[in-house]
Amino acid sequence: MAPTAFDAERFRHEARAVVDWIADYWATLESRPVAPQVEPGSVRTALPAAAPERPEPLAAVLADLDRVILPGLVHWQHPAFFGYFPASTSGPSILGELLAAGLGVQGMLWATSPACTELETHCIEWLRHLLGLPERFAVAGAGGGVIQDSASSGALVAIVAARDRAMAMHPGRPLVAYCSVDAHSSIEKGLRIAGIDASRRRRIPVDAAGAMDVAALAAAVEADAAAGLHPFFVAATVGTTASGAIDPVPAIAAVAGRHGAWLHVDAAWAGTAAICPELRPPVVAGADHADSWGFNPHKWMLVNFDCHVLWVANRGPLVRALSMKPDYLRNAATESGAVIDYADWQVPLGRRFRALKLWMTLRMLGAAALRQHVRDHVAWAREFAACVAADPRFELLCEPSLALVCFALRSGDEASAALLGRVNAGGTAFLTHARVAGRYAIRLAIGGAITERRHVMAAWQTLADAAP
Amino acid sequence: MAPTAFDAERFRHEARAVVDWIADYWATLESRPVAPQVEPGSVRTALPAAAPERPEPLAAVLADLDRVILPGLVHWQHPAFFGYFPASTSGPSILGELLAAGLGVQGMLWATSPACTELETHCIEWLRHLLGLPERFAVAGAGGGVIQDSASSGALVAIVAARDRAMAMHPGRPLVAYCSVDAHSSIEKGLRIAGIDASRRRRIPVDAAGAMDVAALAAAVEADAAAGLHPFFVAATVGTTASGAIDPVPAIAAVAGRHGAWLHVDAAWAGTAAICPELRPPVVAGADHADSWGFNPHKWMLVNFDCHVLWVANRGPLVRALSMKPDYLRNAATESGAVIDYADWQVPLGRRFRALKLWMTLRMLGAAALRQHVRDHVAWAREFAACVAADPRFELLCEPSLALVCFALRSGDEASAALLGRVNAGGTAFLTHARVAGRYAIRLAIGGAITERRHVMAAWQTLADAAP
Repeated sequence: MAPTAFDAERFRHEARAVVDWIADYWATLESRPVAPQVEPGSVRTALPAAAPERPEPLAAVLADLDRVILPGLVHWQHPAFFGYFPASTSGPSILGELLAAGLGVQGMLWATSPACTELETHCIEWLRHLLGLPERFAVAGAGGGVIQDSASSGALVAIVAARDRAMAMHPGRPLVAYCSVDAHSSIEKGLRIAGIDASRRRRIPVDAAGAMDVAALAAAVEADAAAGLHPFFVAATVGTTASGAIDPVPAIAAVAGRHGAWLHVDAAWAGTAAICPELRPPVVAGADHADSWGFNPHKWMLVNFDCHVLWVANRGPLVRALSMKPDYLRNAATESGAVIDYADWQVPLGRRFRALKLWMTLRMLGAAALRQHVRDHVAWAREFAACVAADPRFELLCEPSLALVCFALRSGDEASAALLGRVNAGGTAFLTHARVAGRYAIRLAIGGAITERRHVMAAWQTLADAAP
Repeated sequence: MAPTAFDAERFRHEARAVVDWIADYWATLESRPVAPQVEPGSVRTALPAAAPERPEPLAAVLADLDRVILPGLVHWQHPAFFGYFPASTSGPSILGELLAAGLGVQGMLWATSPACTELETHCIEWLRHLLGLPERFAVAGAGGGVIQDSASSGALVAIVAARDRAMAMHPGRPLVAYCSVDAHSSIEKGLRIAGIDASRRRRIPVDAAGAMDVAALAAAVEADAAAGLHPFFVAATVGTTASGAIDPVPAIAAVAGRHGAWLHVDAAWAGTAAICPELRPPVVAGADHADSWGFNPHKWMLVNFDCHVLWVANRGPLVRALSMKPDYLRNAATESGAVIDYADWQVPLGRRFRALKLWMTLRMLGAAALRQHVRDHVAWAREFAACVAADPRFELLCEPSLALVCFALRSGDEASAALLGRVNAGGTAFLTHARVAGRYAIRLAIGGAITERRHVMAAWQTLADAAP
């Protein structure tokens, strides 16, 4: 007999086995090498050439997970994962994702599942208060927030809204966009997708710490405006990927404001720090002049990927740019104007119930624990940075920014790259690199769900032991 | 003491409660009204104004789920959900999503988790064989496939690749895109996002069944080319949202081919039918001339949302359009050219391990059961259509297409709309509407994971009883 797509008793039984597998995985994470040493194609060669005709038991799948998949993973939840920016999850967040999958509802329109839309709107207001973001983003006014998959998609829809607003206001004037050379690649990618030609994308230089040079921005904007172009979009970064630098958003806002440009703030990683009042001021500075402001609870707030939150000060341009209402989507609630249809705020039409994982993380961990999580990481980063500064073979390439430390060997870029390669091959810690002030930087980004102080200190010891 | 972000024993315990909650939900789905009767704002008013400072127990969250959230959901997995196109999940697929959340790895680059990329490539090859799609999409050649969140995002990246290819080949020539008036709204949305002006987006008329009029397409394309414009993109639909119509893809391909336009095939819903050899020919016809071809396992193949698969015949233009490699993403594997970095095939940078749910669904259900699932639905749709045709108050607006039936009351659009409203308010079945051949159509789309023949027959009885 063919298996049923969903059999409640079978699901109960099998899901427990998967839950146990996950719990065991986390309990043994620390004993695994953080990153694998595998050759391209090696995973595929271990898999059968065709999908099975007949059902296979869960046990066979879990066995292959252990045998084929796990040895080919970088363990992003490993306590000694310090690469890129961590994308950390948590028990409650995993349960939220499980519930979303189990419910299987669609939140593209309010009418397609009202609670899916309203819980999202509500949790985003909770977050706005937790981060201390201004009233201009409140949904009770002209603004509001939405969950996107990633900061890339958040930036893209902001760009499209800004583009269409500018074209309506200044028809025929060529549009120019600005971000720093250290802005995330997703800004440039979003501009490309939106059809902003390379000749109209300006990369503004940064200072030694990696923050945008506002004088250079102002000069570029003035020159373009004088040439008859329209400066339509400026992206500021709060916490660059390379060094965690914070662009001077208030000064950037003043430049953007003089020309009616849309100001987008990308706080993907650093945004979470705003939940701590003592860390908040530089993170939210200038937000009261931003047209859009986004951060990723899936980076440092223990909500599993994907969960980017984008706020806009005025939802009108966003909805006008992205709303499509063919006959088959028309409904009385939409026509009443009393509801949000989040499909109008994003690229895809369909959307799953991502608010559940945000809701469960906030409720089951609580705001106080999330703050402690951030504070611990910031404190450990300072400790780590002090170790670096005290070792004459090493140097800090900039002051640590929140939970990110960028450093190098004094003996040069090649030595730093070789050291990073040796440490990562050892498997007891995983760090990645960037270019900071022209130098090859080793980056230590703390953010793991189960990372403790001892893992950070052990990573330093590993680096110190492996350094020439 | 603050709660730990992940405690293995607590997770084991709490996850079992969530699993039981989900199993109970599915076991009681049939007794719930499919769609709620709620007022805008009613969910939000039942929630506290601020996130809690201190952790709350899972039991409190589950109680609120029952009290506040469930009464505000449209139950998309209800066996009597026949609206839009169903987005059906399955036990194995939910487990795949749970595993992806539990592992919490990132597959943006091959190097960031090799097995995440390779399992995706492999499962997509499995699907290519199951659907009988041509070698031109094989990753061993110049093509390949990728999981996107939705058909909207798949169409967008195809449009961007086509646009950039066309601009490189025909610099300065204004670009024009084509799809039928019944193409999904996501095609128009993708063109908007990519900056293709409304004056360069042509909507081609359809025949009485809703399929594109190829003569009209050819005339529009020739006229544009004669006027010095470049026809750069044609979207054909295999299974329109309104009526399930299948555009004549081979003839459309011939028109597109004469002008070097990119041919994108949107088979989001109907694509799954190609797993059944007897249903395959019209679904894959013309695929051997398509530049991109996409379908949604998350609609009718029991893989939960989000899982759209997009194939391209030539990955070069896609990767050139979307690849960004800042310093912090550079790595030896990428530079070797021997690996796929799926971030280069999509809008976002980050990506979770979505291949797991595809893999688990294919393995734990098996291809034979997936085929039976599709065949049952097609057979039931024909039975339902026969009931409609036999009742003198009703008429079919077109022949049923696969598992979709479009029908109306002979007494007119208002009567049909009123009937649909009454049936949906009753809560025992849920259907939606569209416009077919200028008429208000009630649509019955069969696709539920636990839908049985009796649910389809009961929906007919409900309609017949409620009809004037």
